[in-house]
This record gives sequence, structure tokens and C-alpha cells, in this order.
Amino acid sequence: MPEPSWDRLWTDIHLATMTDPSLGIVRNGAIAASDGRIAWVGRAADLPAPRERLAAEVIPCGGAWLTPGFIDCHTHIVFGGDRTGDFRRRLRGESYAEIARAGGGIMSTVRATREASNEELTARAAARARELSAWGVTTIEVKSGYGLDLDTELRMLEVATGLARHVPAHISPTLLAAHTLPPEYSGRRDDYVRLVVNEIIPAALAQGHATAVDVFCEDIAFTPDESRAILEAGIAAGLQGRLHADQLTDQGGGALAAAVWARSADHLEYLSRDGVHAMAEADVCAVLLPGAAYTLGADRRPPVGTLRRAGVTMALATDANPGSSPITNVGMILNLACILFGLTPEEALLGFTAAAAKVLGLEDDRGRLEPGRRADLALWRVGDPAELCYWMGASPLEALVKDGVPVDATHA
Amino acid sequence: MPEPSWDRLWTDIHLATMTDPSLGIVRNGAIAASDGRIAWVGRAADLPAPRERLAAEVIPCGGAWLTPGFIDCHTHIVFGGDRTGDFRRRLRGESYAEIARAGGGIMSTVRATREASNEELTARAAARARELSAWGVTTIEVKSGYGLDLDTELRMLEVATGLARHVPAHISPTLLAAHTLPPEYSGRRDDYVRLVVNEIIPAALAQGHATAVDVFCEDIAFTPDESRAILEAGIAAGLQGRLHADQLTDQGGGALAAAVWARSADHLEYLSRDGVHAMAEADVCAVLLPGAAYTLGADRRPPVGTLRRAGVTMALATDANPGSSPITNVGMILNLACILFGLTPEEALLGFTAAAAKVLGLEDDRGRLEPGRRADLALWRVGDPAELCYWMGASPLEALVKDGVPVDATHA
Repeated sequence: MPEPSWDRLWTDIHLATMTDPSLGIVRNGAIAASDGRIAWVGRAADLPAPRERLAAEVIPCGGAWLTPGFIDCHTHIVFGGDRTGDFRRRLRGESYAEIARAGGGIMSTVRATREASNEELTARAAARARELSAWGVTTIEVKSGYGLDLDTELRMLEVATGLARHVPAHISPTLLAAHTLPPEYSGRRDDYVRLVVNEIIPAALAQGHATAVDVFCEDIAFTPDESRAILEAGIAAGLQGRLHADQLTDQGGGALAAAVWARSADHLEYLSRDGVHAMAEADVCAVLLPGAAYTLGADRRPPVGTLRRAGVTMALATDANPGSSPITNVGMILNLACILFGLTPEEALLGFTAAAAKVLGLEDDRGRLEPGRRADLALWRVGDPAELCYWMGASPLEALVKDGVPVDATHA
Repeated sequence: MPEPSWDRLWTDIHLATMTDPSLGIVRNGAIAASDGRIAWVGRAADLPAPRERLAAEVIPCGGAWLTPGFIDCHTHIVFGGDRTGDFRRRLRGESYAEIARAGGGIMSTVRATREASNEELTARAAARARELSAWGVTTIEVKSGYGLDLDTELRMLEVATGLARHVPAHISPTLLAAHTLPPEYSGRRDDYVRLVVNEIIPAALAQGHATAVDVFCEDIAFTPDESRAILEAGIAAGLQGRLHADQLTDQGGGALAAAVWARSADHLEYLSRDGVHAMAEADVCAVLLPGAAYTLGADRRPPVGTLRRAGVTMALATDANPGSSPITNVGMILNLACILFGLTPEEALLGFTAAAAKVLGLEDDRGRLEPGRRADLALWRVGDPAELCYWMGASPLEALVKDGVPVDATHA
């Protein structure tokens, strides 16, 4: 009797392979993994017989739906402190300035992050990452940006990287030293940009964790020229480029991301028509973050129709952070994307899989159910994948598979 | 040695007793239950010593926060069929009429509900109720209204009542036979109103499950005169009055609810200033349903500031239903109430506890942590009760207690 050829075979499932704009649906499908990779995917009827000899383990799934493990390509889940008080103050009508004077705002998170130990940061971030796991996420991009000094930025990248020991997820760390100007550089903007370019980026490269560099380009953060200098330095050094672009005002962020060949421009509520076309030409992905637009009560929406017609890849992410998007519930983000931004359920689901993989430069490795790709799989207790965007209850995750191996992630 | 005097004592907790507008916070508190009721509540320092002799069981809670079990005072969780297709069509820009022609809309739910067996309805509704339990809900109002004929309306009330055998929750069934005009009465509106008044209400009373009567007063449903006739018939027969009021247009619904001494008027996006004052004078509760406003993309908000200044009790509920509020995630409703409607976290939390109890006529029985009230308790893994409104992750429910007894509801 020959040895089974696959490690595991999942049967009695429907597949959303994410290989076309209609989600690449295969009803009554099957999928096999070996050595952490997808070995076979297709219609169950096309499996060679007898099935029980095909794999060391055959897992029948009771008619559930299978998607690639979700990819959250924009998060800030490593941070110290607590911003519940800010939330309460904002609802009472206090202004950003009043909240900051009362000790809140992003600088309160920077202070708390600088003061926290790596162990404290890890414990809190791992809890947030587990909430993502419970929603089927197997790849998490994690940004620094609450350190704003060499030591704490590097510590944040180290903590982010270490999260892979606490959750069944691949972590993509991003250096966001240019999140906002630290108060000790007030009046010395150029000095901070030079610190980022000349010291923090080289040190992050030497450390070896970060795979991307990001900048918050906004009139309350960094100018387009400053952003460009930082992005160019990071990209020249081999990092992928990301940009917080055109969220609160039109800074020409989309065009800037295109000019430096960044992988993505993120937020984009104020993205201009020219920006859309520049992004389309340079194949820059749009990362839509409806959690922030919703939480901030933004009155502008990203130009989804224009992006769609221009053929720009639209990814979706939680933007999980303590100030403007305190959300690790992926279902809520999918729902917000549909209801507030007008994405179709198909666009939303592609936004958390195939499109998000492209943002992270992992499009050949994950985000679709195709042979050779990583066997990161999420099994859902739904009658239709669109239900993931529609019914806002508990996570309908039935099972999670990382690198071909079933893992426990159904309870955060 | 004397017998312990209490059944159970919870220690090492902070309490949000919901007894004042600031949530009646007691830090370092304790609470005891006997025979299903709260026997003692207060500061742990005020407990008589020695503690281990005070109760048959002492449960230390590691510094978690305790609230009354949540009360969801407006739901439609009993229904047949599936509306994911409608959701997809609406996002593609199809109109209500197009969706209805394609077999969708509320009448598709009515058809599916009429065709479903009680067992099918129960299984699906119980799954939804368990999602509420996982968010700390121990009292659920459940409306009929997808039958629109005598038999199915009674079956829905029977199924609703029976849910108490499947989830650790008290169920308050509401007769909503006047949800919309059934197609078989097209052109014979008066005949349907007469059917509701003369047959369905008396039959529901004879059946004995319903505790309230509700009407959808709207230009697409029932006129104020029709609504009044049905409400008056139900209230005269001893049912509590509820009203879907002023959601899509100003129908004078708030004033109507006040005129018939209904317990609540619900939705209220178009409530007039006169309506607010009529409600205040008659002590009619406002039930705010931000899930529907959000899902429908409503551009109007209920007049929260006017309601607040007028002293109207503001409750909050999921409105869980397949069309306009497919949401059983209480955290998301709390968050929507704060962000879209401008409630404070305190108002939102009171809205799901003390205020909701008043809507259901149960204000003397539950909704606050006070001696003599039912020991329905929810224990939360949060640093501050406001976090329940703020961080949208997995439900932070740590434990649930129904009638003084710990129950398993942490996994939906």
C-alpha cells in the first residue's frame, strides 16, 4: 500500500479561492496541504479515488466555507497605555486640544509606550492579535510609531516580531518612526527627519525585523517633501514603501506614493482624481481603513468608484489602534467597508485576502487558494461568504489552519 | 458553626450598579445572591468578617467589572430564511423595489417564516440568542411580525417563549402582527387592522405568551390612526404598548405613544420637539436603535440632546433583524450609539440595563445591582466599563450569572 501523498485533505467544503473578482468560488470542493503549502485545490469530484489513501489525515468540514487566512495589512496593535478616557472626553464634546491638555491624545500613547517594558507591550499586543486570530487572520502587519525615538522604535519592531511566538500568525513589521513629530523636536522638524533617515532607518535595517517603511503625510504630521525624503531613504535601503495618505486633507499623497513606487497609499479620504490615476499607473495599492473614517466621524469617503474604474487594487485593514480605530473585529471592518464605503462583499473579502497580500509584497505566497501557496486557511460557519460582511454577531470562525497545521484560534 | 447565609458571594470586583447617571460605580466591591436574588451589594470593606463563612460559595473575580446582565429590549431574532442576497443587491445599488421584485425584502422573510417549522425557527433563533448571551444579555425582548397571519404570529410567540429553554435568558415576547400589511390584504387595510384587533390580539392573550403589543407606524406600514386602534386594543387588554415611531418620516409617533401611555417609542430619527415633550410628560421611554440607522445609511439622527434635556429615559437595543439591523454584537451597538448618536458611554450602558428594564416594565426586578433584584450578572474583563463601548474586539465577557447561578455563555 503506497504512502499517502498529502499531509492533510479537507473535504465537504465550499471554497472561496479569491482567484477572480467573484471570489473564485468552488462549491463542493476539496483542498490538500503538504509541507505547509497547498498541494491540491479543486472540485471534490475531481479528486482521485480512493480519498482515504490520499492524505495522512482527511478532515471533513460539514459543508463549511473555506477562505485563505485573512491578512490584516495595516495595524498599530503594539502600544502602551489606554485611551478609553480620550474616547469618553471626545463624546462629551471636548476638542482634540482639550484632550491633549488633559494628558490624552497620541502623545499619551507615546509616553506610555516608552515607559512600558517589552513584556508589557507583548502581553497587551498578543491579546489584540488573538482577537484578530479569532477572526481568521493569519498574517498581521504591525507598525511602530509610538516610540518616536531610536530605542523605542526598535523595541516596538522587536515586540511586533515576537508576536509570532504568541499567535498563529505571520507578522510583517513596518517602521513608522515618522508617525508624528515628537515634542522634544518641536521647532526642529528637519532634525527629526534627519534622525529618521540617518539613524533610525539604518538601525532598523541592521536589526533586521522591519520589511517596510511608512510615513504619516498630513498637515498635522509630515509634509510631502519630508515624507518623500523618508520614503526614498527607506525604499533605497530595500524596505517596501507605505504611506498614510490624504486622510484628512489632500496632500497629493496618492501621487507621492506613486512617484516613489510605494506598495500602498492608505486611508485616501481626500485622494484626488489625479492621485487615483497616478496610483493606477504605478500599480500602488489603495488600503481602505473604514474603521478610522467611522470612529472619527469623517464626512469624506475614499473615491471608491474612481479607484474601481481605474483598476487600482483595493485592500482593506483594521487600522487597529487606540485613538482612531479601536477595532480588531474584522467582521465589523468588512461591514463598515460595505456600508460606509460602498464596497461589494466580494471587494471587501478580496481586500482582506488577495489584495492585502499584494500590499505586503506577499502576493505570490498567500491570499489565494492555489497550489504552491502557503496553506493558511480559515474555515467559516456561514451559508455564503458574503455573510461575513453582513451578520454582525460572534465570529463564525470554525477552524484555523496555519502553514498546513490546524491551530486553536476560535476563542480570543 | 452557623450555616452560611448567602448562596454565593462574588469578591475582588468593581461594580457598575447602574443606580445613578455615573453608573453607580463601587470600586473594590462585593455582591451576594440567595434564591436567585441579590442579597447584598456594597464595598468589600463593609462585608462582615469572616468572609468565608458568609456564603456557601465565594467566587473571587480577579478585579473584573460587574454589571447587571444586559437587557436587549427590541429584537426580531425569530425569522426564517436569509437576507444576505438582499444585502449584496443593496450594495450593488439596486432599489428596494428591485430587490422586492427579485424575491427579497421583508416579504421574503414572511414567506420563509410561514414555511419554516417551529423547530427550524427555534434552532436559528437560539443561535442568535446565544450570540447575545456571549455579550452578557440575560433578558431578551423578541417580537413576532414575520407571520402576519393568526397561525404564524402565534407560532412566533411560542418559539420566542421557548428560547428560554435554549439560552440562559428571560424572554419577553411582543406581538407585532402590525409589522407590515400582508400582501393578501392589499387594498383591504381596514380588514387587516380588524383581524389584528378582533382576532390576533385576543388569540395572543388566550395563548398567554405576549407581554406587549407593538406597531410599525410609518407611511410604508400603518397610519397613526391604524396604529392607535391596534395599540389601544392591546393596551386595554392588558398588554404593554410599544411603537416603531418616526423612523423614516415624522408621523407624530412619539406623541401617539404618549397619548396611549405606551411604555416606549422606538427608532425616533424624525421625532419632533413636540413629540419629545409629549414623551417626557407621559414618561414614555425612547428606545434608540443605532444599528438600523447605520445599516440603512440614515442621514437623520434621533434628537438625543433634546431627549436628554427633557429627561426622557433613553434605552438602547440591537433591533437584531435580517433586513435593517443584522447585528447581535452588543458592543457594536454600544459603539454605534456613542459614535453615531452621540450618547456618552454611561448613557449607552444605562441604555442596555436600567433604562431597558423600564421599557419592559421590569424596572423593579432587574437592570440594577440592588438588593432584592434578580441576580442576573455579567462579569467583564475590562479596566473600565466604558471599554465595552470603545474597544471593538471579541466580547470581553468573563462570566455570566442568571438568577444567581453561573452559566456558560462565553462562547456563542
